[in-house]
Formats: sequence, C-alpha cells, structure tokens
Amino acid sequence: MSHNSFGHLFRVSTWGESHGPALGCVIDGCPPRIPLAAEEIQAFLDKRRPGQSKFTTQRQEPDAVRILSGVMVDEDGVQKTTGTPISLMIENTDQRSKDYSEIKERYRPGHADFTYDAKYGIRDYRGGGRSSARETAARVAAGAVARKVLPGLVVRGALVQVGPHRIDRSRWDWEAVDRNPFFCPDPVAAEEWATYLDGIRKDGSSIGAVIEVIAEGVPAGLGAPIYGKLDQDIASALMSINAVKGVEIGNGFEAATLTGEENADEMRIGADGRPEFLSNNAGGVLGGISSGEPVVARFAVKPTSSILTPRRSVTRGGEEVDVRTKGRHDPCVGIRAVPVGEAMVACIIADHYLRHRGQNG
Amino acid sequence: MSHNSFGHLFRVSTWGESHGPALGCVIDGCPPRIPLAAEEIQAFLDKRRPGQSKFTTQRQEPDAVRILSGVMVDEDGVQKTTGTPISLMIENTDQRSKDYSEIKERYRPGHADFTYDAKYGIRDYRGGGRSSARETAARVAAGAVARKVLPGLVVRGALVQVGPHRIDRSRWDWEAVDRNPFFCPDPVAAEEWATYLDGIRKDGSSIGAVIEVIAEGVPAGLGAPIYGKLDQDIASALMSINAVKGVEIGNGFEAATLTGEENADEMRIGADGRPEFLSNNAGGVLGGISSGEPVVARFAVKPTSSILTPRRSVTRGGEEVDVRTKGRHDPCVGIRAVPVGEAMVACIIADHYLRHRGQNG
Amino acid sequence: MSHNSFGHLFRVSTWGESHGPALGCVIDGCPPRIPLAAEEIQAFLDKRRPGQSKFTTQRQEPDAVRILSGVMVDEDGVQKTTGTPISLMIENTDQRSKDYSEIKERYRPGHADFTYDAKYGIRDYRGGGRSSARETAARVAAGAVARKVLPGLVVRGALVQVGPHRIDRSRWDWEAVDRNPFFCPDPVAAEEWATYLDGIRKDGSSIGAVIEVIAEGVPAGLGAPIYGKLDQDIASALMSINAVKGVEIGNGFEAATLTGEENADEMRIGADGRPEFLSNNAGGVLGGISSGEPVVARFAVKPTSSILTPRRSVTRGGEEVDVRTKGRHDPCVGIRAVPVGEAMVACIIADHYLRHRGQNG
Amino acid sequence: MSHNSFGHLFRVSTWGESHGPALGCVIDGCPPRIPLAAEEIQAFLDKRRPGQSKFTTQRQEPDAVRILSGVMVDEDGVQKTTGTPISLMIENTDQRSKDYSEIKERYRPGHADFTYDAKYGIRDYRGGGRSSARETAARVAAGAVARKVLPGLVVRGALVQVGPHRIDRSRWDWEAVDRNPFFCPDPVAAEEWATYLDGIRKDGSSIGAVIEVIAEGVPAGLGAPIYGKLDQDIASALMSINAVKGVEIGNGFEAATLTGEENADEMRIGADGRPEFLSNNAGGVLGGISSGEPVVARFAVKPTSSILTPRRSVTRGGEEVDVRTKGRHDPCVGIRAVPVGEAMVACIIADHYLRHRGQNG
Repeated sequence: MSHNSFGHLFRVSTWGESHGPALGCVIDGCPPRIPLAAEEIQAFLDKRRPGQSKFTTQRQEPDAVRILSGVMVDEDGVQKTTGTPISLMIENTDQRSKDYSEIKERYRPGHADFTYDAKYGIRDYRGGGRSSARETAARVAAGAVARKVLPGLVVRGALVQVGPHRIDRSRWDWEAVDRNPFFCPDPVAAEEWATYLDGIRKDGSSIGAVIEVIAEGVPAGLGAPIYGKLDQDIASALMSINAVKGVEIGNGFEAATLTGEENADEMRIGADGRPEFLSNNAGGVLGGISSGEPVVARFAVKPTSSILTPRRSVTRGGEEVDVRTKGRHDPCVGIRAVPVGEAMVACIIADHYLRHRGQNG
Repeated sequence: MSHNSFGHLFRVSTWGESHGPALGCVIDGCPPRIPLAAEEIQAFLDKRRPGQSKFTTQRQEPDAVRILSGVMVDEDGVQKTTGTPISLMIENTDQRSKDYSEIKERYRPGHADFTYDAKYGIRDYRGGGRSSARETAARVAAGAVARKVLPGLVVRGALVQVGPHRIDRSRWDWEAVDRNPFFCPDPVAAEEWATYLDGIRKDGSSIGAVIEVIAEGVPAGLGAPIYGKLDQDIASALMSINAVKGVEIGNGFEAATLTGEENADEMRIGADGRPEFLSNNAGGVLGGISSGEPVVARFAVKPTSSILTPRRSVTRGGEEVDVRTKGRHDPCVGIRAVPVGEAMVACIIADHYLRHRGQNG
Repeated sequence: MSHNSFGHLFRVSTWGESHGPALGCVIDGCPPRIPLAAEEIQAFLDKRRPGQSKFTTQRQEPDAVRILSGVMVDEDGVQKTTGTPISLMIENTDQRSKDYSEIKERYRPGHADFTYDAKYGIRDYRGGGRSSARETAARVAAGAVARKVLPGLVVRGALVQVGPHRIDRSRWDWEAVDRNPFFCPDPVAAEEWATYLDGIRKDGSSIGAVIEVIAEGVPAGLGAPIYGKLDQDIASALMSINAVKGVEIGNGFEAATLTGEENADEMRIGADGRPEFLSNNAGGVLGGISSGEPVVARFAVKPTSSILTPRRSVTRGGEEVDVRTKGRHDPCVGIRAVPVGEAMVACIIADHYLRHRGQNG
Repeated sequence: MSHNSFGHLFRVSTWGESHGPALGCVIDGCPPRIPLAAEEIQAFLDKRRPGQSKFTTQRQEPDAVRILSGVMVDEDGVQKTTGTPISLMIENTDQRSKDYSEIKERYRPGHADFTYDAKYGIRDYRGGGRSSARETAARVAAGAVARKVLPGLVVRGALVQVGPHRIDRSRWDWEAVDRNPFFCPDPVAAEEWATYLDGIRKDGSSIGAVIEVIAEGVPAGLGAPIYGKLDQDIASALMSINAVKGVEIGNGFEAATLTGEENADEMRIGADGRPEFLSNNAGGVLGGISSGEPVVARFAVKPTSSILTPRRSVTRGGEEVDVRTKGRHDPCVGIRAVPVGEAMVACIIADHYLRHRGQNG
C-alpha cells in the first residue's frame, strides 16, 4: 500500500541504494516457528550475485546477508521465526562511486535518471541509487523466507528467450538450468546463447530477454478477487522488477489468438477421484484464484540502457549531450532477473496462502 | 490492500454480483469541489453497456447509475464532490436467473466456477456471481470520476487485435474508434473484423483480443517506486479485469528482442526549451515513474469460455459431464474490455497524481 | 488505510451523508458460509435508532437495511455469506433539510462545520453531512455481521456515567440494560438519570457520558503487535465515533495511580488445568494481545454541541454571530453511542480473529 | 495496515528485539529535499535513553543511530532526504541476556509473556523480546524525522501526573521540563516527585503516570474522516506504546461531566481578521479534523510489572510459581514515555499533513 512495500499479511518492505552503506528488507507477518537460517537465504542470494560469469556485471559483491531480528534459537537448538518482523541487511562493499561522477548531471537514456529528478528534485546518481538493480538483492532475500511459508511450494524460474532466440520447449530440463550461466533449461540453446551473448558483450551492447517462472504445489483456492487476484498480484510483483515491460500468465498474449474451444482447459475426474485439468492454458489461475495446476508466469526484460555506444541525451541544466555509459554492467540483465522473478512469485503466493487461511480458515 | 479495493489515495471498492439486486462502488479520497453529474458517468457506462450490437452479449441492461453520496449542489448551482466517499449504484434489471440453473452443479471449463468453489465452499452460480464481467460496470463508473481528478488527462482505448488479426497502425484514427462496434482505430480492419466475428458468433464460438490504452496529459513524476510503480499499478489493474492473461507497457514483449541501442529513448531539448524524448519505447514510464510521454499499455483478453461446443468437465459432486453454455454471451469479450481498460488506467493515474502531490507537494 | 475504511481482513467502508438519499457500508473479507439474514442486522439497528424515547433525537428513521450483495440462499434454504463483499444500504427518509438552512453559513460551535470547510472548501451543511451521527448506523450494521465471525463472541455495552453521575458497579445487571432507555446496567441509577436527563432536555441543554463495552469469548492470542495491537485498534475504532474524547482499556487512567503490586494481574492454574488470571486490571489485553479474559473498554462522549442557548460563533464570510441550534437533537448522544461502541469492538475483534488465523494458522 | 507499520503516506515500520543485534525502522514516504543529519535524530534518542538518572532503568545503551539509506549530500553540501526509504538502525550493546534466563519458563505477571506464547507458540524471553520498551527507540528516531515534514510544527510532551500526584497547571513552564529528570513542567512538583519516586525505587516497586503531548503549528484541515480522524490516529498511536491504558484528546474524560454550554468552544474573528477559538476544550480537533488550535493529547501509563515483590504466576509447563523480577527496570516507565509520545504524535501529524496535501492539493 505504501511505496516500498508489498504484500498484505506476508509483507515485505525494502530499502537501500546502490551505493549507500547497505540495503535490506523487513518482512512483517511471517508465521512463527519456521526454521530459518541465514545460510538458506544466502543460497538464493548467491544465485543472483553479480560477477559470477562474464555475462553479468563485474561488480563484486559478497552479498552476505545478516538476520537482525525476528528469529531465535528454540529449545531444540534450531533457529526459528518468532512471528515478529524479520529484518535482513546486506552491506554494500564494492561501490566505486567515482565511476558515476560524470553522469551526475547527465540523464542516461533509458534509465530512471530523468524521471527521478522530475519526481523528487534530487537524485542519488551513484549507480542509479534506489533505481539500481542492486535493490533486487533484498527481494531475493525475502523470497527465500517466503518459500518456507507454504509447505510443499516449489518455485523455479528459467530464461526462455534472449533477444530473438527462444528455447525449444521439448528440450526443457530443469537440471540444465543450474549448469549454464543463463538459467537456461534448454542445453542446446544455452550453448548458442553463450556465443550470441559474448558478441553482445564485446560490442558493449545489451539485449532483452524473457523469463518464465513456474510455481508447483500451490493448492486450489488462493487468490483474493476482485482486486487481489493471484495473477494480478503476480503481474504487479513482476512488473515492479527493474526493466520489466511485459507480463503473461499461462498462454498470455497467445490467448488473444485462440478460440474458446482451443483455450478452455477441460476437466475430468482423476485416478485419485478428484477433479483434474486436462491442460493448463490458464497458467494455474481462473477468475484470479489458483486452480491447483502449476502457476505459470512469464515476463519480458528490456535490454539494459547502459551501453558503450553514445546516445543523445540532455543534462539537468538543459544542455544537449551524448552519453556513453562506462561503468560495469550486464549485457543481459534478464539473466539475473531469473532468481528475482522466482522470489517475487514466492512472496505473492506466501501472502495469498496466509490471506486465504485468514478469510477462509 | 483488501480484496475488493484498489488505489491508495483515490481508492475504489466495488461490490455486487451478476444476479443480485444491484452492483456498485465506493470511491474514497476523491478531491473536493470537482463538478460531477451522474450524466457524465452514464456516458462512459453506455459505451460498455451490453446488447448494443450483435457482437456483444444480448443481455439488456440500462446500467443507470445513481450517485448516493459524496456530492452536493454548491452555491453556484453546480453539483460537486465534497471530499467524502462517493457511492455509486447500478441496479440489475435483466437477470433471467433460470438460464443458469443447469450449471449450478457443473463447472464450466475456463470459468471461475471450480476455483470459487475451491476457495469459498459456496458459489453464486447465477451468471457467474461476483466473477461475472458485469462487475466491470462499477469500474467504468469509477473511471469516469477518476478522469476528472487530473486536469488535462485524456485516456483512450482501442481494440488492436482480434484473434490473429491485427490492425495496421499506419491507419490509426481515433475518430474511427467510435464509428464501429469494436472500438477499432483502423477503419479497414473494422470492416474485416465484422465478417470474421460474425462467423465466430454464428458458430457459437469465441475469440481473444488485444486492447491498447493510451493516456495523454500525464505529467512527468507520477509513480511510487519501488512497489507502487506507475507501470506496476497499471499492470495490476489491467490484469484484474476478467479474462486478461497478459499486460505490456510501451513496446512490451518486443523489448526482449531489442538491443540497448534500439530500445533506449534518446532525449533532446525541445523547442520550448524543455527536455523531450525522441521516441517512446518505454511507454511513458521509466523506473516506474512517468516521463511526460503518453503512457501506453496493452492487454490480452482470452476468448470467453462460454461456447456452444460441448466441453468435458465435472460436477461439484465429482461426476464427469459435458458442458455446453447456452445463456447470452459475447463472441469477443475483448470488445467490451476497451472502456474497462480505459477506466482502470484512469483510476491508477488519478491515484498516483494524488500520491505524488501528497509526498512531493 | 484509506479515509473511510477500517480493518485489515474484515474490512468495513462506510459512505453516506445525513441528508443524502441513503447511507451504507461495504464489508469486505467476511468469511463465507456464515448464515446472515437482514433481520439479524435490523435488530441491532433498531437498538440505535433515533426517536425511541424523549432522551434521543426525535428524528424518525425506520433505518431499514437491505443486503445488496455478498449473500445467497444455499441449498439448505438458508441465506449465507459467499465471501464476496457485503453491501448494506439504509435509505434516509426523514430528512427535513430546511431545518438546517439557516446554519448554512454559520459554524456551529463544537461541531465540525468550521473544520470541514477548512479541509474541503465545501461542506454539506444539511444535518452535518458526513459528520452527522447518522453515519453510525452503518457501523452498527457492520457490527451485526462482525458478531457472527468469531464463534462464541459476545459483545455488550452499557452507559456507566452521565454527566457527573456514575453507576454503582455492585448493582450491575446486564438484564437491566434493555429495560431502560439509557442502556444503564444499574436499575437505581437509571431511575435517577431519567429525572436528571429530563431536566437537561427541557433546558435545551446537553450532557456528556461514559460507555463501557465488554467482549467475552475472545480467545487468548488475538492482536498484532506492535502497531496493530488489539487495544490500539479498539482505541482507534472508539475514538472514531462522533464526539468521543477519551478511551480506556481495563482500569485505564486509574492505572496511573497504582503501583506495580496493585496493578499486575496474578496467575494460577485453574480447575481445568489451564492458566487463569486472578484479576483483570489489564482489561483482557497484555502487550497488545488478548489474554483470554474479557476485553474491557470505556469511552467518553462529549455533550452534543447542539443546544438552545446561543453561543458566539462566526460565519463562512467572517461575520460574528450568535448560534442557537434548533433542529432535533439528543440531550445525551452518549446513549445512542452504546450500540455503536459495541459494533466497533465487534468489528475489531472479528478482524483480529481473521488476522491471527492468517498469520498463525 | 500491517502489524509493525503505521502511517499512510508517511509510513513507519519498526523491527528489532530487546536482545537481538540491533533494532530500527524504515520510514517510507518522507518528502524529498529535507535536510536530515544523524545528529538531529540522535538528540531525540538521547532524551529517551535509559540510564540517565536513578529513576530509569540502569541499562546502559548509547543508542547511536545510523542512517543507512534515503539521504544523500546535495550539491550544497547538506545531507538531504531523497524521497526513498530512510532506514535507521540502532545497535544493541548492553544486553546481559543471562539476567533473563530464569524467567524463560515463567510468565511475569502484567507482562506480555503469556500472551506472546499464546499467540505465537514461541517467545523471545530475553528482555521481553519484541514487547520490550526498547522498541520505542525506533519510534523516537522516526519522530525526529517526522518533525521536519510540516514546517513550523512544534511537538512537546510533559509528565503531568505520577501516581496520585498531579502537577499544578498554573505553574506550567516548558523550560522546566528539561531541568528535571521527569520531564515535569511544574518545578515544585518535580521536587516532590524526586522524593516520592526515590521511595518507590528503593522499595523495588513501580508506579503509573500520565503524559501530556501538545502539538503547536498544526494548520486547520488535517485529518481524514471518518476512519482516519486525526484524533483517532493519535489515540491509536499512543495506545500502541508499551503499557499505555488510556488516551484523551482535549478535556477527555472530563467532557463526560460537562454540559454543551460548558464544553463547546466559541468562536470570534481575531485581530488578524481570521476566525479564532475562544477556548480549546476540543484539544484542537473537531469532527476528526484539526481546528488550528494546539492539538492536546494525554495518555496513561501503567506501572511497570517488573517489581521485586514476588507475584503469583505460572510456567509454560503449567506449574504454579512466584515471580520476582530482578533485572534492571524503571520505577516509572511513564518518564521515558514522554519523548515516545511526542514522537508518535509528530509522526501522525506528518502523515496527515501529506495525506491532506494529497487529497486536497
């Protein structure tokens, strides 16, 4: 409801700038008595961490998370949540503020420099300040906690398109995702992308991407129509990620091209005597409520605007200039968006699980 | 923040079922002293109203709106908002509950029947109850009020794709939109669609569509990063509309295929001495904050699942059945989604205008 | 979170002015499958209704409530909540707007006339508009629904002080409450008050009062520290009632005069083997969380400012005038505040019950 | 709206336990370009800090605050807010966890031990965990920021009653407040209280108190009726402070004893040609909206329940025990509640100032 928070019962508030002393989040409403160690959160942060391959920014950040509140070691010796706010902090260490001094007065095209100035009349130009993708570390940390709220929930993401190159879905292999630096589920595509992205990188250029996130283990019944629909809240959460320009649920924009006969998911009684769907065009959500099928969301990330080719722009003072971003940047920010997308979906599902439990017992 | 409300300072709560006595909304936080007549709201409701052509449901509803609170006639004889909640009510008149009796026990594939039952354990089966598109009348009414909050705001929508058929953007003509029953801005496409949709209708089938909404007159600086971004809130609002499966801002999913050089909008100093953008790939939003360019959003609507061809399904009791929806339905629900999309975008912009004014004075 | 709503999961939004066509509320988040008939709500409205004795305003309003949404008759023939928003409407019938025409330009001392004008620059002067105590009918209606959310909850209120006259607590008799027009639990005091208040009424004067509300059947564990404490939310809800100037929980202001030895409630193991408190100075709340003891709240209502004695004031135009309120008014608005206080406490407890169930399962 | 946050546009979320590594808050929605140095916040923390006299707990905490985000040094060399979340952190240093080991299994009467266990099934027993008054340091820090939001706002508090001993209001002297360890505005009472409280302290007992907070410089028009009334939100904020059992606005409970003639504040046109009130019984709020008069609130704090005299209680395991609290405690927690009350009132007024600016421009 406020500017830097999301969620209703599982509520996450993030804070911090790219080049401030630290960044973090406060998770309010996490159920009590859930085992939670810093290492579990760290594991997800490590996936998102920059500087792990030549395809992401060379900024080196350990992204070491500390749990400052909301847990205690129980009598069984296990650290658990207590139901009070969980404050997580990650210190910034590799800040190199001087890299950014020359863009202090210049609006980088495609970045939020101009709009932050238009809004606030003051702008933390160091590394993009609050608009930096570094903020997403806090999301990933929150997502690691969210994953533990709904027992049985598994949320996984993958890069399914880089520039014009899509994966071949018949080759989808979740295990492949962790074996290439792109979170790509298609091992063949991953090899081709390596060559393609290396070219982008060497040119000092950048390229967009599409990420798919699939949540399994979501029981039927989650979602709060009309204005807290599960797919709506997922769309909102994904669109809030830096550089995201589009979001789809299930077959998404393709649904516009289908007839009712093609699109509707038929039902039958399964072997276990319970209703089951024969397809999942809906992406696990009907009328804003989960159907019990996997929840499937995709989002498009634009190419980062930090490129070596000079682009026309203006200064705060109204002068026309050409801007060429040196700094350390991602040739494809979509790559590191994979764990961020997973985290956001996990947080939304955790929240809806608690909301449903509240209203419906 | 709760289930049936959206907005933070300009806050809309809707209520009502398809076949209850009435539906409506309460608008909380509308600024005072804005002239507001029921006729102004009615004009937008009339655009959305069913039964106006053979391409939308034949349900006949006058959709006459009453203003129950929040206005008074000022000393100048003009009815104005007072700053207190504006309650709007629309009575349901053409309900024909009997049409729906046979689907009381059956889950219509693609509809929210199964999920509402899974969530609530009770379901208003009459016309879809709360999940009916009739609820969108309340949104359109709220949008009519929202349009008056930010002076100079113009929000217009158009149908840009029906099934596989897209408009030719070079023929875009806003005046054409009101001259065909599809809100289509391309007069040539409109004629082709008439034939195409007539075929869909006669087959008792249905088809998806894509709607584009453009908001002009949005000043730079609106949007509340990180989790109340302008594009995020628009995505959320559009995804909350019945049957929507995808949302895009600016060039949307196409951005995934572009390089940084192609995608970034360059800037120059305009004739008026102020910064201007040379393109609008961003769709008027950078870093979640409006740039001063037109805000451009698109959303995909799936085909309605109410079709004459029998589909396999199950009953509440666990029996396998075939469902064939008779009732009165839209061959392309996307058509009537145009004024609804406009309304949602208008509400979000009004809210962000007030939020910005609050935080930034 | 917004201006005319309260509650987090059981959320109530009210609307309407004293002299508009109607007033009402929307209840969002009520659990599904709760039997709910309009008659049940009406019973509580009838308690609050004006014109029932010479000690309350002579305005005659049937205050007949209609349920416009959120319920349906289930297969067992019982009308039940469906989990969707419950819209309640009460039409205004006895409005006599002309009574108020002469105070259109005058600020009645002690009323909200001046401050509404200062805030909004426009003011519905007819009967106080939105600031009228008529709005509390919507609260009472919402409270009637709230009472059904937590099984076993009993919320009762009583007038415990009128002007300087307090009840004798040793004579407290809940059955007496319904046998006098003051909701007074002390039959002896009730008789004395009749004489006292008759004098006030004949003088065209008014007097303040204190109301006590007791909620029984509240399980230990409800309340959301730190900023959604149960007592905090009750204080907020009671202070939002027209004319309330003070709120206490448990022994309230008297606690300031006690030592730690006197004030702390000791504990022992009860006959049922469970912890029990030996006293209830805390009023059923410790650290913002219910203790399982009855929740006890009191609130002070100021005398209505509508009196026959002329008071010095000013007009909108800046002229000095004397104001004498004729209209139809309550010699002691505290009387009718009893069912309103009950309703607010019931709503807060229902909300916290659902919140607790959400976070803690 | 969530559990550990308050405010709508100026929104404060606090986190941290008494004996965790740190505590703090995140302030979301603070306007940009406000000069803000850590030293300014520190000055208010120093007022609240324990261990400054023998009348407060002897715990020694430097309570040194760090600003982790939301500010930057502007081109004029002054550190200013940027409009992004302000994260404040205070490390805990003097924790002595061993003091509390023996109450791990015992519920201290009057404390929140039993209710936290009832709610969460797990409890941070070290120093009261989240329910400790240490959390109020975060409130004071937030209040220091809030004071800078509304230009001209002055919020001051004073202790006006200790046990049965009230100040003589005719001796009220704001300068006296800082010259005694009780924040007492009556220099004569302050001396008497020193003797009285010394006795309480030596007995290992404790006593309650009443605090008064006065806010000057509040323009007419702030407050969001019906459920975000200014006095309602102040009542909520004050009741959320540890150990508070009652709240009053203006003449509070005394209003119950007054007639309409006595209580209403009359108005005249002042020397400056603007309306003015001839008295302030209302405490600066009418109909939930500020009147332009000073906002006056009072709240009652119960005696701390940590006393040397053994009290009967039970253990988690259901055993009956006697509890005698050793630790380091306040003979009168009301003293340190003075800066906390000021801070809460400042936060609420800042929030309402922004809300009013949002809705009313």
